[in-house]
Amino acid sequence: MDVIKPYKNGCGYSYALGAFPTFELLRKRPEYAIGVFVHSSFTERAKVEALCGEHGIPVWNNDKAIARLSDKENVFVIGVFRAYEDKLDSELPHLMLVNPSNMGNLGTILRTCLAFGIHDVALIAPCADRLNPKVVRASMGALFSLRIAVYNSFEEYVCFASGIGREYFPFMLTGKTQLTVENCPKPEKYTLIYGNEATGLPKEYAEVGTSILIPQSDEVDSLNLTIAVGIGLFLFRKG
Amino acid sequence: MDVIKPYKNGCGYSYALGAFPTFELLRKRPEYAIGVFVHSSFTERAKVEALCGEHGIPVWNNDKAIARLSDKENVFVIGVFRAYEDKLDSELPHLMLVNPSNMGNLGTILRTCLAFGIHDVALIAPCADRLNPKVVRASMGALFSLRIAVYNSFEEYVCFASGIGREYFPFMLTGKTQLTVENCPKPEKYTLIYGNEATGLPKEYAEVGTSILIPQSDEVDSLNLTIAVGIGLFLFRKG
Repeated sequence: MDVIKPYKNGCGYSYALGAFPTFELLRKRPEYAIGVFVHSSFTERAKVEALCGEHGIPVWNNDKAIARLSDKENVFVIGVFRAYEDKLDSELPHLMLVNPSNMGNLGTILRTCLAFGIHDVALIAPCADRLNPKVVRASMGALFSLRIAVYNSFEEYVCFASGIGREYFPFMLTGKTQLTVENCPKPEKYTLIYGNEATGLPKEYAEVGTSILIPQSDEVDSLNLTIAVGIGLFLFRKG
Repeated sequence: MDVIKPYKNGCGYSYALGAFPTFELLRKRPEYAIGVFVHSSFTERAKVEALCGEHGIPVWNNDKAIARLSDKENVFVIGVFRAYEDKLDSELPHLMLVNPSNMGNLGTILRTCLAFGIHDVALIAPCADRLNPKVVRASMGALFSLRIAVYNSFEEYVCFASGIGREYFPFMLTGKTQLTVENCPKPEKYTLIYGNEATGLPKEYAEVGTSILIPQSDEVDSLNLTIAVGIGLFLFRKG
């Protein structure tokens, strides 16, 4: 392949910038890999070729394509993949993000999910584009190990993904239960729900389950979303 | 004042971009404020003038200066302040960051410290410039409520800031104590220590105290630094 056009939402493909995310793509989602661009100065070419060889994925030498797609970053390998959709596992715990807008935050949160054993993430639209190369890169390729699905509303999520016996925990500054190390609930099957970076969750989410407040000083207006998600995931995990 | 030059490390001043950080400057560190630039379309001018009036701080109308300093961001007010130095309170808990390199991370961490009641932050050089406008903005002005000091080494910090009876907790992937919700130590006076985003802490830090590992899946190589700090601060806080 000579060139591909820079990514646009809905273009049908995306790419993983850099070695770590590209290896994650080739290991976790080889069935969606279209091919890999390698730069003439890339030092792990043999490793890419071995992985690609196993799955019949082409390797292209193309310094120009890399310069064009990498957007000033220091990138020597780019894995190109077809857009795909996932279905969540309705028996497992979920993270839900309602209207997340920042792609770097979304990627960081996906990586944190994987670190703490959450493999299913629901996004409520409008939301940052989960396949954008910036999300892929910020996640360090963690998104290839997760199931991520986009829903138009909370109700749509409940219909299609929640299953039976799930408990919901919306995180809100008006939350009624203060989360502490001692009192964190330990349900089997749960969804932790977080709102937009700037506006938080719409108030009607307080009614869907046990609303949670992470106690914080009134010297700040709120925690950063990624930090709040990290603390919730850490405290709700088992063992 | 007509214009000031864009910020450079060591230039003797810096600035807070945007309303929230500027109000924090005027409330928490008015003694270091040099003046405030307001844009002709800024809607909270009266509030800025009232705060500045209390402390004899000049308010300047200067759309051009704002455009020049704000670096493409949507900014309508800029508070200019003199560079200053803090001394840590040796009786209180501290956060220490060894060689943090990302300014956005540093600002987010400072804001998280304030949210969880930590007011003293030690930085071990080389490190991101704590007064850079990017740090000020990412902290949402939280840095004006904190004491932040830079040291050339851990030993220098111990000499000047640690006081008597302090416990040290270096966070490392090789940490000997797995941090869980149940077993988090609750010392009175402690320093949580974190390393660089890419390289973590040098291994000799394992010897300075009780090394801590935040348990995480081997599906990721490590947690994001800001998340790891957020979890540590949340678990070690009292009550």
